[in-house]
Parts: sequence; C-alpha cells; structure tokens
Amino acid sequence: MRVGFIGLGAMGLPMARHLVAADHDVVVASRSRGPIDAAVAAGAREGSGPAGVVAASTVTILCVPNSADVVAVIDDALPELREGKIVVDASTIDPEVERAQHERVHATGAAYLEAPLSGGTVGAENGTLTLMVGGEATTLEAARPALEPFAGLIVHVGGPGLGQVAKLCNNLIFAAQMLATAEATTLAAKSGIDLRVLHEILVHSTGDCTAVRTRIPFEGVLPDSPASNGWKPGFMTDLMAKDLDLTTAHAARIKSPMFTPGVVRQLLTAASEAGYGREDLSALGKIVRRLAGV
Amino acid sequence: MRVGFIGLGAMGLPMARHLVAADHDVVVASRSRGPIDAAVAAGAREGSGPAGVVAASTVTILCVPNSADVVAVIDDALPELREGKIVVDASTIDPEVERAQHERVHATGAAYLEAPLSGGTVGAENGTLTLMVGGEATTLEAARPALEPFAGLIVHVGGPGLGQVAKLCNNLIFAAQMLATAEATTLAAKSGIDLRVLHEILVHSTGDCTAVRTRIPFEGVLPDSPASNGWKPGFMTDLMAKDLDLTTAHAARIKSPMFTPGVVRQLLTAASEAGYGREDLSALGKIVRRLAGV
Amino acid sequence: MRVGFIGLGAMGLPMARHLVAADHDVVVASRSRGPIDAAVAAGAREGSGPAGVVAASTVTILCVPNSADVVAVIDDALPELREGKIVVDASTIDPEVERAQHERVHATGAAYLEAPLSGGTVGAENGTLTLMVGGEATTLEAARPALEPFAGLIVHVGGPGLGQVAKLCNNLIFAAQMLATAEATTLAAKSGIDLRVLHEILVHSTGDCTAVRTRIPFEGVLPDSPASNGWKPGFMTDLMAKDLDLTTAHAARIKSPMFTPGVVRQLLTAASEAGYGREDLSALGKIVRRLAGV
Amino acid sequence: MRVGFIGLGAMGLPMARHLVAADHDVVVASRSRGPIDAAVAAGAREGSGPAGVVAASTVTILCVPNSADVVAVIDDALPELREGKIVVDASTIDPEVERAQHERVHATGAAYLEAPLSGGTVGAENGTLTLMVGGEATTLEAARPALEPFAGLIVHVGGPGLGQVAKLCNNLIFAAQMLATAEATTLAAKSGIDLRVLHEILVHSTGDCTAVRTRIPFEGVLPDSPASNGWKPGFMTDLMAKDLDLTTAHAARIKSPMFTPGVVRQLLTAASEAGYGREDLSALGKIVRRLAGV
Repeated sequence: MRVGFIGLGAMGLPMARHLVAADHDVVVASRSRGPIDAAVAAGAREGSGPAGVVAASTVTILCVPNSADVVAVIDDALPELREGKIVVDASTIDPEVERAQHERVHATGAAYLEAPLSGGTVGAENGTLTLMVGGEATTLEAARPALEPFAGLIVHVGGPGLGQVAKLCNNLIFAAQMLATAEATTLAAKSGIDLRVLHEILVHSTGDCTAVRTRIPFEGVLPDSPASNGWKPGFMTDLMAKDLDLTTAHAARIKSPMFTPGVVRQLLTAASEAGYGREDLSALGKIVRRLAGV
Repeated sequence: MRVGFIGLGAMGLPMARHLVAADHDVVVASRSRGPIDAAVAAGAREGSGPAGVVAASTVTILCVPNSADVVAVIDDALPELREGKIVVDASTIDPEVERAQHERVHATGAAYLEAPLSGGTVGAENGTLTLMVGGEATTLEAARPALEPFAGLIVHVGGPGLGQVAKLCNNLIFAAQMLATAEATTLAAKSGIDLRVLHEILVHSTGDCTAVRTRIPFEGVLPDSPASNGWKPGFMTDLMAKDLDLTTAHAARIKSPMFTPGVVRQLLTAASEAGYGREDLSALGKIVRRLAGV
Repeated sequence: MRVGFIGLGAMGLPMARHLVAADHDVVVASRSRGPIDAAVAAGAREGSGPAGVVAASTVTILCVPNSADVVAVIDDALPELREGKIVVDASTIDPEVERAQHERVHATGAAYLEAPLSGGTVGAENGTLTLMVGGEATTLEAARPALEPFAGLIVHVGGPGLGQVAKLCNNLIFAAQMLATAEATTLAAKSGIDLRVLHEILVHSTGDCTAVRTRIPFEGVLPDSPASNGWKPGFMTDLMAKDLDLTTAHAARIKSPMFTPGVVRQLLTAASEAGYGREDLSALGKIVRRLAGV
Repeated sequence: MRVGFIGLGAMGLPMARHLVAADHDVVVASRSRGPIDAAVAAGAREGSGPAGVVAASTVTILCVPNSADVVAVIDDALPELREGKIVVDASTIDPEVERAQHERVHATGAAYLEAPLSGGTVGAENGTLTLMVGGEATTLEAARPALEPFAGLIVHVGGPGLGQVAKLCNNLIFAAQMLATAEATTLAAKSGIDLRVLHEILVHSTGDCTAVRTRIPFEGVLPDSPASNGWKPGFMTDLMAKDLDLTTAHAARIKSPMFTPGVVRQLLTAASEAGYGREDLSALGKIVRRLAGV
C-alpha cells in the first residue's frame, strides 16, 4: 500500500520505519532535514510537503504536536484530497478541532480517522502502540494495513472526536496517579520510610497503578524510572500540561465538572517555571518535594 | 501458640477463624455477642474482655475501628501486660497515636507492633491480607506465627508509626485514582463513549490502576464492580474519608504539603450527605455524575 | 468629538447614551436592531457596520462579548484605520489576543487602547464605570473625552494587554470571595446560624468583601442581593467562567501557578449544567447548598 | 464586678488592662511570669491558678491557644463552679469541644458563654474587638459589663458552639481572599503591572476585600502591610492553619462540603515548612511567588 507519513518526531520516525519494514511504499514529509534523511535511509521516499505526500499516497498518517499543526497540514493537503484517499491523524488534539477536520476532509470525498496513540517512544520503537480510533468503522478497516505495523492494540472508540476524548481520559487518570504518587512518596520519605519497601507494598495493594510501578519520583528507588535516569522523558511534563488543558476545555464545553486537573496543572506550571518542562511528568515530584523540604 | 483476638468485625472474624484453623489456641473478645458466638463455634474460646484476653495470650491482635478504640483497649489491657507478651494492632489509626501506644506498652516490658491491613474482606476470608508492620523486627519474628495464617504478604516497613504511614500512603493513591476514574468515565459517557470500550483501552494504557480495573462507577460496565452490584462495599466511603483525614493530619504535623485529598475528601462528604457513606468508595462517582447530569 | 460605538449590549447601550448626553456626535453599530433603534432614539446616528463606524469617527469604542468578536471587528475595520484615528476596546478578552490587536492597528498608523470595565450594568447606567487602560498614555489623553462620560475612575495600568490582566486579577479575587462566601454561609446555615446575624459579623471582620456585602446566596438575607431577586444577573455565571478561563490561560502562558480558579471553575460548570449559567455568579451557592443538602 | 482573666497572651493582656481601666476588680492567671507581673502592675491581682481565679470571680474570661487548653482550664476550675458564676471562653476552638464545655459548666449550676474574637492585637489594644457570642442571651446580659471594656461590637450569634462557627466562617473567607490576592498580585507582577496601580483598581472594584486593602504580599506596595514591615504578624500563618483545620473538621462532621480550605491549607503548610509559620498570613504569598519565580 502507498502510505504517507507527515511528522517524523520521536514517535513518527520509528512508526514510519515499521511501515517500511512491513513492505509498504512509504512517502514522508517533516519539518526538519535529519528525520527525513533517516526515514529515506530506512527505505522511505521523500514527498513534496504535506500536499505532495497526500497526492502520492492512499493512506496518509499525521503525527504532529498540536491542533494548529493538524489544521495547517489539512489546509495544505486539501486540494489533493478526493474519494479513495484516507487521512489518519495520530496526534493528540482538541476533540472539537478534530471533529472539524473530519468534516473538512469528508467534504472532499476522502475519508478521515483520528487515532491518538498510547505507549510512548518505547511503544513506537517496538511497534506496540495502542490506537484509540475515532471515525467510521469501514474507514478503519480500509486503513488497518497502514496502522497494524506499529500497533499492539487498535480500538475503535466511536465517531469523530471520541478517540481524542478517550486519550484525554487516559491521560487525566495518569496525571492524577502521578500527583498522588509524588505526594505519598514525599510523605513517606519525610516520615522515614524506605521507598523501596513502600513500592513493594503499593504494587501489592489498591494503590497499584502505572505511576507507582514506573515513576517513583526519588532517585534510586526504581532503576528504570526517569528519576533514576536524569528525569529523561518518557512523557514530557509540558505535553501533559497541554493534554490537561485540552481535557479541561472539553469538559467545560460539554459541562462535565472535573476537579482532578486543577492542582496538577498548576504544579506542572510550577515545574515548567522551574525548568523541568521537557523532563518526564514525574518531575512534578520535584515541586512536591521542594514544598515539603525533602 | 496462645493468640488473643480483640475486635471481631467484618475483618476480624475471618482472621480469627484462620488462626483457629492454624491450630492456635485462640481467645477472643468483641463488642457484640454474635461474632463472639461465631468465633466460639469455629473453635475459639471467649475471653473476659480485653484484659482477660491479654492475660490469657502470648500474642494479642487488635482489629478495631479507630484511634480511640485502640487507646481504650490498651487502657484496659495495661495491667496485664508484661515481658513476654506481644500486642499487634491491625487497625488503621493515626500514626502519632500509634507511636504513643508503642511507648505505653513498652513501658510495661511487653512488646508492640502495628500491622494495618490491605486486601479488604475478601483478603481476610482468603487469608491473603497484606500487613504493613511498624515496630521492632525481632518482635515481628516472634509474632509471625500469629500473623501468617491470614497474611499473603508481611512487610516490615520500619519503626513505630511507619506501618500506619504506609497504609495511609496507599489509600491516598487509591482515592486519587478513584476520583480521576469517576471524572474520566463521566466525561466519556457524556461524550458518547461506550464505557466498556474505554475500560479496555485504559487497562492497556498508562491510566491502568486498581480503580480502573475494579471500580468503574457506572452500572453494567464491569460485572463484578460495586456499581453493578448495588454499590455494596468493598471499601466503605466513610472509612476512606476517615483515612484521608488521618493522612491530612499526619501531613500537616510533619509539614509535607499534600493537595490530593482536598477535593476528594469534600466529594466524599457530599457522598455521605447524599446517603452513600456506607457504600463502596466508587459511590463518589454518583456525586460526579450528578454534577455532570449523567 | 465624533465617537463611534460598536456593540450595544447591556453595557454598551447605556455607555453610548452617556456619550450622546455629553454632546458627542455618536455613530453606532450592533448586531441586533433593537439596541440600534434605542441608540438612535437617544440621539445617535446609525453607522454602516464596524467599517462604517470607524470611517465616520475619530475615536471608536468596542464593547463585544469575546476575543473572536474583537478580532472580527478589527478585521472589518482595518481598511478604514489610519493616523489620527483611535480604537478603544472595552471588552474583556485574552491579553495575548489584545496585544495582537494593538499591533495590527498600530501598523495602520492608527492608535489603540484597551479599557476593560468594572462596575456592571449599574455602573454603565450611572456612568461610574472603572476603566483599566492598557496602551500608550498619550493615546489615553487623546481618547479621554470619549471615555469620561461613562467613567467614574480611569486608571492607566500600563502597556498593551496589562489592562486586561488587571481586569482578570480583579475577577479572580471576586470569584474566590464568592465561593468562600457560599461555603461559609452554607456551613453556618446548616449549623443553625441566622445568616443576617452572620452577615452583620462578617462586614465588621476580616471576612469583609464584595461577595459578603452584596451576594449572600440565600434568599431573604440581603434585600438587594441576586438571591433575593430571582438570582437575576448582576454578573453572569457563564461570563465569570469565561474570565477564569482567560486567567488560567494567561497564567499558564507566563508560568505563574494559580490554584484559586481550579474548584470555582468546575462548580461554575456544574452551575451552568444545572441551568444557572445566565444567572448571577452567586448562583454557584445553589450548587454548594445542593451538595450540603441545605 | 469581680472579673477573672486566664491567659495573658498578646490578646489577653491588653484585654485585662481594659478591664482594670473600667474599674473592675480583676484577678488573673497565666502560664508565664512576665504577663502576670505586667497585669499586676496595671492594677490586677494575681489569682492562684485557674481554680483560684474562678473562686475569686463572678465572671471569668479565658483566652488560651487551643481546645486542649480550654478543657484543661475547665478541668481545673470545675470544683469552684456553682450557680451565680459565669465563664466566658474567648478562645477560638472546635465548636464541638466548646459545646461540651457548655454542658460541663452548666452541670455545676454555673453559666457559660463562648465569645471568640475578631480584630487582632490592634483591636485588643484599642478595645474595639468584635465578639461572636454563643450561649444564652440572659448569660450574655449578665456578663456584658465584663466584655464591653474591650469590645467594639458584641453579637449574640446563637446557642452553644455557634459563636465558634461564626468565627470559623469569617476566617475561611479571609483565607480565600488572601490566597486569591497572592495569586492575582503574583500574576500581575510577573506580567509587568505596577502593584500600587493594581491596588488602586482593586479597592474600587468587585475584588475589594480585607486582604486587598491590607495585605498585598509584595514589599513596598502598602506602607502598613506585613510585607512592608518584615512580615510581622497581624494574623499568624500557623494560627490560620489551625482555624482552617477546625473548619474542615466541623464541615466534615455536619457533612457540609467545603472546597476552599483545600489548597490554602497546603500552601500554609508549605509556608510553615519554609519557616514562615509565625509570620503574618500574607506570607503564603511568598510560597506563591516562589512557585512563579517572582
């Protein structure tokens, strides 16, 4: 299948490589030279910008940072869209903006899916990402060969926008876990508990969750955690802040009160102000620890 | 071994039965007649109140509702305590009050442990509770035969009070999971997402946690959840409120700021006001849903 | 002076009337027929849309609901702007969007001020509004004759955007007062205190504030309060929600953590969901009271 | 009238002086020597501890730090209480504990009032304190000559405990004002606004409140503010933390949800951890500023 790929970031480049490895004819575009060269070295062809990629492909996948970027790509590609072509947006963006892109693309006769991702750069490298798909089931079946090479799980959530909502729900819960884990471990450390012992308890109790398993925000407690590895991202603090803002905006729009993001978002702001914005989400633990003096 | 057991509630009675089944000579006391008769029918002997139980036992286990109850039992038992006897408090209480009981009991020459429990009534029935032990390691070794019959995991957390702190840390994280899960599922339901699909995604993503796995607060999503079974407790809303208050008080005492309990505690108050205080913790989802109109 | 006025809402119409009364030559535009007719009846002339109003005026004042409306008016008016003309935006909008309008207008050679208002419809009727001005001091001096007819106090806050920031700061504090007042009066009422007695105490103590003085959210406590008059707006709940969102967005942008809007905003969402969005801000008291069952 | 006074702290000593100045026969007790000597120098007599003071007096006023202190004084004084004697507790304590003291004292035939104070050390020096009285109106009339010398306003709030509840309501609103004022001024300062200009606007707008008028938490903005005078107390941060805890506990007991104390209390904890616990409440602004980097 001729598959286009627009946006070769930390997620996009390994995803594109999996498409090449699956014997698709892959055409790529991206903002920076380096990743394009890397994709070409892996066997992809370079397309002529978003419009050129869409013109050359049956299915085109987008993986760009935010709502405005998605809109800009669609702006550019719109003249090339027609029946038989499919666009799949793998970015995490505002569900309302996403719904509008579905409409714009459908108006051309082409089909559109959103498929925000879970699994991080590790999942992208391993080809085990979870895709939360919004759009028509028939479109998903047509696009599936272009998605499976990098997917561990593909779930059809529902109509336009609902894939994005599912992604935001997931990240909301993860953010809450992270703050509570930061606060609990700070309390425990200040009380004099060995955090390796606490970790052993938590993973065997109701507190068990992803944050406890992977992101205790103290150096040396978990060997593989960001805290033990220079807080290097996994999941960037500033991106979680962006996602919580999307969640809050969506919740306000549909009038569904949501208390969890309140404090977390502000501590992420403090983390960003302190220079941790590009570190892993667990860096909000550094703010909690500073307030507690540990 | 002669093992005393004081407090035959929903947790205590099955724990006492496991002690009998392990061939200990078990002496019990409790406030109500029914559980005493049940324990005696299972093979225990009835002691003459807390003091009588302590007098007749080498290791005495307490499992009572709150700090004041523990203090009252120790008040009563104090004249019978002497070197060679061990008291193990399995209740969840204020770490500071617990530390004071360690001191009072040690002053008599007897030994003391705290061992708050995780695992709920199911863990008590199955004898698979997690014990978070605070006190001397040598005391734990001496008491271990009286604990293993109902324990799946025994972790020595540290000195006096630290078992209680570990328990509070666990419950804090669980409470945060629960609110975020209630908010995320409410948002998703109001957006039109099938919550069984969302559940499938969350357990395979970073949102994975105990609340997501077991306590989606909508009827019919998870067959075994409280929501699908009349919100019958598992973990009672009013008890979580009590535990969060202990956490907040401990955090204030050691000056470790903690934002998570703020809103959760107040929504638990609203749940209690609405008559859900004796239902499962997931009943706070009913408050979130009411505010969102779903 | 030839003064244009665009946006004859509940604030704009009485402001325009004050300009006519001050013997200015007033040209108006608005979305609906009724207010235009009312302004014309008062002595104003009808302009041909935003562009026509700007073409006919030296100073043009905008008073429209939100950021997008301001941008749309400037889009329309831009071809008519040139040196010697001044635009004054009296709307409350995003400081960043406002800064961009300053730049767009300055690029034409015209001058621009922002002057968001405090004082509500009562202040507009009485001509006693407070204006929080952002922009050049010399522009303010030139525009002053077109502002004084409806102003009780004109404060030059600083450069572009800073008038908006000052307005958002004010509304943040007012919102916090309102939630605390709602919670305190609900607690007092549920405890059995006569709220007229509590009000007497609060206005003589450190709790004294605008919300206490004017917006006790129980019927019959203050004769002139919204609660005693069908919750009829003064300051609409949905508008406060909008302003808090602008505040939160600005705070995130400049990385200034801000915890106060968190819960208030969500209770405003609940109020809007419950159908109180067009009632006075004090209607969030109805949500607090419902959660407390009083 | 023979008036006893127990607790000669920063509030109590000047209150006792006003009683002497009003020609009462004043008998005092306190923990430290210094204030007793100062009261004696002013014309009071030294009593023999709480019991001795009560034995020697018709009306005895208590002004001690917390619930436990009040209970200890009543413990001591109980044998001396009988019909014809009145105890007035001017401390701020838990309404439930206060209700219990009413009952204990009434059981002796004596009468009891609570009368927590507003107005701070300045009000105590000037004799202009606000008293929020809980108890019987007839007891208040009998005690009034012993209260008026230091009171600017005496309000009979209602029955036992309700004076304390009114005091807690006031402090809750004041705390909310303070956090919002700290956040708004931090946002404004970081945006580049001159805070003297902002202050001028806020006192003329809906943001007007005690915190805005007296406690802008930046040095040099208000000449008389704590911030401009070494953050010296007015109202001590750790005492506000205590009062918020009483409020939260009372709200939980009567099931009246209350979101405001959540974050404020935790930032007060951070302030205390940072060493500002004995500074004025406005010192929580130093925490907000630190998180924002201004």
